[in-house]
Amino acid sequence: MAITTFKATARRKKGLAVTAEARGFKVDIDEPEKLGGTDTGMNPVELVICALGGCQTILAASFAEKMRINLEDFWIELEGELDPDGFMGLSDVRPGYQKIRYNMHIKSDASEEKIKKFVELIEKRCPVGDTIGNAVELEKAKITIEK
Amino acid sequence: MAITTFKATARRKKGLAVTAEARGFKVDIDEPEKLGGTDTGMNPVELVICALGGCQTILAASFAEKMRINLEDFWIELEGELDPDGFMGLSDVRPGYQKIRYNMHIKSDASEEKIKKFVELIEKRCPVGDTIGNAVELEKAKITIEK
Repeated sequence: MAITTFKATARRKKGLAVTAEARGFKVDIDEPEKLGGTDTGMNPVELVICALGGCQTILAASFAEKMRINLEDFWIELEGELDPDGFMGLSDVRPGYQKIRYNMHIKSDASEEKIKKFVELIEKRCPVGDTIGNAVELEKAKITIEK
Repeated sequence: MAITTFKATARRKKGLAVTAEARGFKVDIDEPEKLGGTDTGMNPVELVICALGGCQTILAASFAEKMRINLEDFWIELEGELDPDGFMGLSDVRPGYQKIRYNMHIKSDASEEKIKKFVELIEKRCPVGDTIGNAVELEKAKITIEK
């Protein structure tokens, strides 16, 4: 396959609330009240770990079939640590996640060895895992100003 | 502030469809039919750029107030490029995004110079931008197997 381009938009609503959209699917993004928002949706860093868990789960569903693993259930708990001083400009600490960890819950009659290989394959091939775990080139913003 | 931990879960539904959840907020994740899914939600890499746009928009709303910029409207178009050969294992290309770009649409009577500084501050302090643009430590999976 050739390079594929994925697109999305994000638009400010009221206060800190945002609606983001891709291919007609929408997601509400906000901050909890203690971070200045109105708590109408998950916040962006929560959305990032949801995307990671979603990506790993999709690969699990797909690879289970290929590896002939009978996957009766699959779910993941994820957590990430960041220091809010970074985005608040209160220290030089990075604003983003410092560390992310997760626990994959797998219900299957496959051998432990086969499940380990399965998980290694998911981790190696995960597009969101690679996007987060390795640096991506972010171009500087184009800015379109309307008076 | 001290290190803050954000949490989420992702659970397989049917086929490639996933429900992810953080603090009671849910998001449906799936793939379009041409990628093997049932198209019931955006896919994980679209969700990642939605999270990026959402994060930039929240910082814009927050910093506009601090910089006394009258922000009448703010929205972003984002796009990211990746090569599906990576997650399919058809080549050694990275599975994640290779490049992400965005166009910020700003309606404001502020000077162009002030808007440039505003955008630079958003880019510098964005937690999701930093998470994507710089490597994050992803711990190897813990695996909990149920027979």
